[in-house]
Amino acid sequence: MINVGIIGAGRIGKVHGESIMRYVKNATVKAIADPFMSEETKQWANDLGINEIYTDYHKILEDDDIKAVLICSSTDTHSTISLEAIAAGKNVFCEKPIDHDVNKILEVKKALENSNVKYQVGFNRRFDHNFKGARAAVEAGKIGDLNILKICSRDPAAPPVSYIKVSGGIFLDMTIHDFDMVRFMSGAEVTEVFAYGAVLVDPAIGEAGDIDTAVISMKLSNGAIAVIDNCRRASYGYDQRVEAFGSLGQVAISNDTDSSAVISDKDGVHAEKPLLFFLERYMGAYVAEVTEFIDSIENDKPVSVDIECGLQPVLIGLAAKKSLETGCPVKVADIAAEYGI
Amino acid sequence: MINVGIIGAGRIGKVHGESIMRYVKNATVKAIADPFMSEETKQWANDLGINEIYTDYHKILEDDDIKAVLICSSTDTHSTISLEAIAAGKNVFCEKPIDHDVNKILEVKKALENSNVKYQVGFNRRFDHNFKGARAAVEAGKIGDLNILKICSRDPAAPPVSYIKVSGGIFLDMTIHDFDMVRFMSGAEVTEVFAYGAVLVDPAIGEAGDIDTAVISMKLSNGAIAVIDNCRRASYGYDQRVEAFGSLGQVAISNDTDSSAVISDKDGVHAEKPLLFFLERYMGAYVAEVTEFIDSIENDKPVSVDIECGLQPVLIGLAAKKSLETGCPVKVADIAAEYGI
Amino acid sequence: MINVGIIGAGRIGKVHGESIMRYVKNATVKAIADPFMSEETKQWANDLGINEIYTDYHKILEDDDIKAVLICSSTDTHSTISLEAIAAGKNVFCEKPIDHDVNKILEVKKALENSNVKYQVGFNRRFDHNFKGARAAVEAGKIGDLNILKICSRDPAAPPVSYIKVSGGIFLDMTIHDFDMVRFMSGAEVTEVFAYGAVLVDPAIGEAGDIDTAVISMKLSNGAIAVIDNCRRASYGYDQRVEAFGSLGQVAISNDTDSSAVISDKDGVHAEKPLLFFLERYMGAYVAEVTEFIDSIENDKPVSVDIECGLQPVLIGLAAKKSLETGCPVKVADIAAEYGI
Amino acid sequence: MINVGIIGAGRIGKVHGESIMRYVKNATVKAIADPFMSEETKQWANDLGINEIYTDYHKILEDDDIKAVLICSSTDTHSTISLEAIAAGKNVFCEKPIDHDVNKILEVKKALENSNVKYQVGFNRRFDHNFKGARAAVEAGKIGDLNILKICSRDPAAPPVSYIKVSGGIFLDMTIHDFDMVRFMSGAEVTEVFAYGAVLVDPAIGEAGDIDTAVISMKLSNGAIAVIDNCRRASYGYDQRVEAFGSLGQVAISNDTDSSAVISDKDGVHAEKPLLFFLERYMGAYVAEVTEFIDSIENDKPVSVDIECGLQPVLIGLAAKKSLETGCPVKVADIAAEYGI
Repeated sequence: MINVGIIGAGRIGKVHGESIMRYVKNATVKAIADPFMSEETKQWANDLGINEIYTDYHKILEDDDIKAVLICSSTDTHSTISLEAIAAGKNVFCEKPIDHDVNKILEVKKALENSNVKYQVGFNRRFDHNFKGARAAVEAGKIGDLNILKICSRDPAAPPVSYIKVSGGIFLDMTIHDFDMVRFMSGAEVTEVFAYGAVLVDPAIGEAGDIDTAVISMKLSNGAIAVIDNCRRASYGYDQRVEAFGSLGQVAISNDTDSSAVISDKDGVHAEKPLLFFLERYMGAYVAEVTEFIDSIENDKPVSVDIECGLQPVLIGLAAKKSLETGCPVKVADIAAEYGI
Repeated sequence: MINVGIIGAGRIGKVHGESIMRYVKNATVKAIADPFMSEETKQWANDLGINEIYTDYHKILEDDDIKAVLICSSTDTHSTISLEAIAAGKNVFCEKPIDHDVNKILEVKKALENSNVKYQVGFNRRFDHNFKGARAAVEAGKIGDLNILKICSRDPAAPPVSYIKVSGGIFLDMTIHDFDMVRFMSGAEVTEVFAYGAVLVDPAIGEAGDIDTAVISMKLSNGAIAVIDNCRRASYGYDQRVEAFGSLGQVAISNDTDSSAVISDKDGVHAEKPLLFFLERYMGAYVAEVTEFIDSIENDKPVSVDIECGLQPVLIGLAAKKSLETGCPVKVADIAAEYGI
Repeated sequence: MINVGIIGAGRIGKVHGESIMRYVKNATVKAIADPFMSEETKQWANDLGINEIYTDYHKILEDDDIKAVLICSSTDTHSTISLEAIAAGKNVFCEKPIDHDVNKILEVKKALENSNVKYQVGFNRRFDHNFKGARAAVEAGKIGDLNILKICSRDPAAPPVSYIKVSGGIFLDMTIHDFDMVRFMSGAEVTEVFAYGAVLVDPAIGEAGDIDTAVISMKLSNGAIAVIDNCRRASYGYDQRVEAFGSLGQVAISNDTDSSAVISDKDGVHAEKPLLFFLERYMGAYVAEVTEFIDSIENDKPVSVDIECGLQPVLIGLAAKKSLETGCPVKVADIAAEYGI
Repeated sequence: MINVGIIGAGRIGKVHGESIMRYVKNATVKAIADPFMSEETKQWANDLGINEIYTDYHKILEDDDIKAVLICSSTDTHSTISLEAIAAGKNVFCEKPIDHDVNKILEVKKALENSNVKYQVGFNRRFDHNFKGARAAVEAGKIGDLNILKICSRDPAAPPVSYIKVSGGIFLDMTIHDFDMVRFMSGAEVTEVFAYGAVLVDPAIGEAGDIDTAVISMKLSNGAIAVIDNCRRASYGYDQRVEAFGSLGQVAISNDTDSSAVISDKDGVHAEKPLLFFLERYMGAYVAEVTEFIDSIENDKPVSVDIECGLQPVLIGLAAKKSLETGCPVKVADIAAEYGI
């Protein structure tokens, strides 16, 4: 039984807390820390059987019985806490992105080189049953050599503009998941990016210096071409699909629904819309990613979503950002070079 | 080029007229006959290039240049005209049913034994692309041995009660197509029938002595069980499906739609409803059945929908009728025995 | 927090044990009893935090801290334990069927009349997301008045013949779920049953006096007609669907799959087959039914799957059995009358 | 009855010949011309009832009884024959593209300004039932304001390299249909284009100076972003889909299949692959476009696919070509400016 500490008791911290206490057989949450620990959150922790509740996460890092920490705090603290946790010899599961600043990610990477803790990045979508099913088909050679990879990723509704302002922009906040999916689905690296963006959902997003709609095309190291389309608002729910096309065929996934009920009436044939909320759609994925993290610790196996998986999407996202600003395609290697990589 | 005469210029006569003149390469309609030949119908015939227009169908039977006739008149005249046409040495395509009276069908059958004309019955559904696709899968052994056969057949709207009264009842008018489908899909004979019926669409149909909703289960000669469900009204259009289940799997078909457009919005995911009208759904089938008829004449090949295919569904329909009246299952052989078969 | 005791630690007992310990917030399993308590099962219980492990279930009935019991033992013990549990003032969740013998069910029913414990029967399918979605559409009036109800229920593979012999026959063992679904979906009672059966999967099943394939048609108290088709073997997995057709339209459900991945290649377009095993398909339903049971105790609400829901499907099953034996339709009221109901 | 002359008796000329003779009620093909008129083609024409067969198309232009011509000759002759036909006062239906050279299209445009003949360009896909269904949804406001438009267009197999060499390149030969679809679906103009291309199907295509795989993103005049993905080879057939996403929802279409038969077996659930060949997929569209052309002549209505619809996709195609060459986005207005537009 591996003792885990959770740093950050916001929405995603709670998701992990519940999933570990309920579904992850060989782990338990020994402690949780958050600077703003409400009564409600304390009650939630108690109900789950999490007994140690702190406002200072260092208490967790100092606890020798805790073997692993989940960093679920705000993005700007991810890299600092990662460094401290690595120094304390903890295995780390860090929510994405590690940081918007590549240098800080590189610091974490460097710290890991001199350590032997596990470090997994929270790209949950890799553990979703549908995306896994599609990846399995690609890996099994069902579509032959990849030619075109299409990822559709649309949120049900835009976050508040206050969030947009500190989000790092759509490419680092939202598309970062899709950049990870491009790498996951293709098994290749993104070499060049071209982005078109527009403000079509909410002018306030534009005023905040961001866009809400984008089409990003990419060249991959295996010769294939990838394209992502993003929008901050899909009236019909959370729309997350992938289509991988290759020399032998194509694999595509569709969204999950609450039920398969289809109603035929005088107006047409009506199915349910996709699950509206990412927690509904990806609950199974959250459990699976932490289960794998715990397994990698217990059986000393490499994590599948490693520090490189945390770094590359940020580089691609910065390339996309620069492409949007300059109106020209941008090589990912040029971005990397800026950081001496 | 085979000269054809069409007897009966109602809806189905016109369907065949148009399909022969437009799509059947080796045939032309030389003449058409109907006791009530309106100006509009004459114009229609002229436009298509059908030059000989009669009120007396005997003119067609007397024309030595006409090799084949299509009997599209009212049901009560089918058997008489069939007998005359056979006597005149014409190849015959007869709309279903040949007659509601088994004895009259047997007369036609007997006449055919002493003749060498082709005689095809108008069970168009066998030529529909979807039903053909399903049958092909069964025939190719894709589902192994047939275990359960399910046929769903629902009309968009009930016909007028005046029609119901002379229709011979739902089993001989509507289900007869489905009985034919049971034989077509299974390659077996129906041995026993049990029918449940109800009046759920229109009380006037009940007052006319008929039902509008039915579930008919059947034992087949190959050991499988079949079930048909019928309704005179489906708010969402013409619903015609089949599901054949066997030792190795299942084949199922769905309805055709006008387009494949699917709209996702805040209320759900909406596809088009099935084509509403049988002429839309089965136009291709009407062309295909006549094409095959002409081909069987030209190349002296047996027709696939022969007099037996005209007889059996009527026997099954009568068994279903008796089952509904008696509340007990009825053997088709017992019905046949009443007619000395 | 309601303390629960589980009687029977076989497959379904374990399912409930895990689901309560993990997902049912206001309940905990205080004790579990089974005459054959293996080391493996003890370990399983310990791992889950179930501390009291007995071979004699009376220990559970005698424990005043236990407010509710789940009867998961073999079918022939359900009614006896039910009576004892009711006498002990326990709320009871009893796996289906309560008994194959109607008299024993009636004894339980009578005992309940003089008691105020909750008694819920384990028809899990009512809690499945798809069946619930279909029922919700019917209840909301989306299909208008029900005309035809079709239930398809096929197991992936036949159980061993040794099981078949003590199963009570296909109608009481397998179709009983579908009879419950007819009542659930229609909100009506079955008044008459006609069954066709065949041995098409395994001759040994026939030799054991049972059938493996069936089509059962039914008249319902609301005038609608229902039909169930069953087979003990579906090569493509666990096939559980419903189609409810009414005056305004139809609602239909399809099976769940592991992922939505669809592969297009030179041979066609391939989706995954349905989940193979009932535990996979219905895990969510098992959690939901016990959650509702606990909720009914805590908030003194009537259970939705009550003793009548346990009784009726057995009566219908016996009617189906008699129909198969006599070759005639059988009224459910006639079966009931045999038991003085 | 409008007399039509067909210039060019190749594959597409024959398609139009057959569709006019069979399905277009108010038109007949009076003459057909082709410099290489084989015996087989003559026979084909005779069988259809096309009596005048020429090697010199001027005979058609000189015939005062012929009101309309269909230009189905090789692309490099389209503009010259268009000019001659307009000068001869014929209404013109010209296969796409009018020319690869914008100046020649502009000559035709200019000729039309001083004439009152109808001039329709052969973008058949606008008349396809699926694309029409999608456009109808957009036009009806079902998706609100367009945000993202995605067009997938893949051929079943690459044409011979000899064809590739004279094709004008993938953007003018294949994508040109998709550029037209962008305009049709969006009701807007393309303002800027960025293209990624690759040679992934056949190195010989690369050696011929062309690409076989492409992703082209576009800015539209209404603010939306569009993206096309192309490949010369899709192992599963002719893949032609569109997905239009807007403020209120999305409309998407799927491919047509030969039948709707779906087989479930131990390996999965298998549907048919898309129709393999463009003539199968678009036969209905070919009939519909010529029917509309004839209707526009008869009732003096503007054609929906006019000279501008012939011009714009060529400009967009040239922009895509330049983008591929330069690696930068290209404004369509800059291409137009090169031609003084």
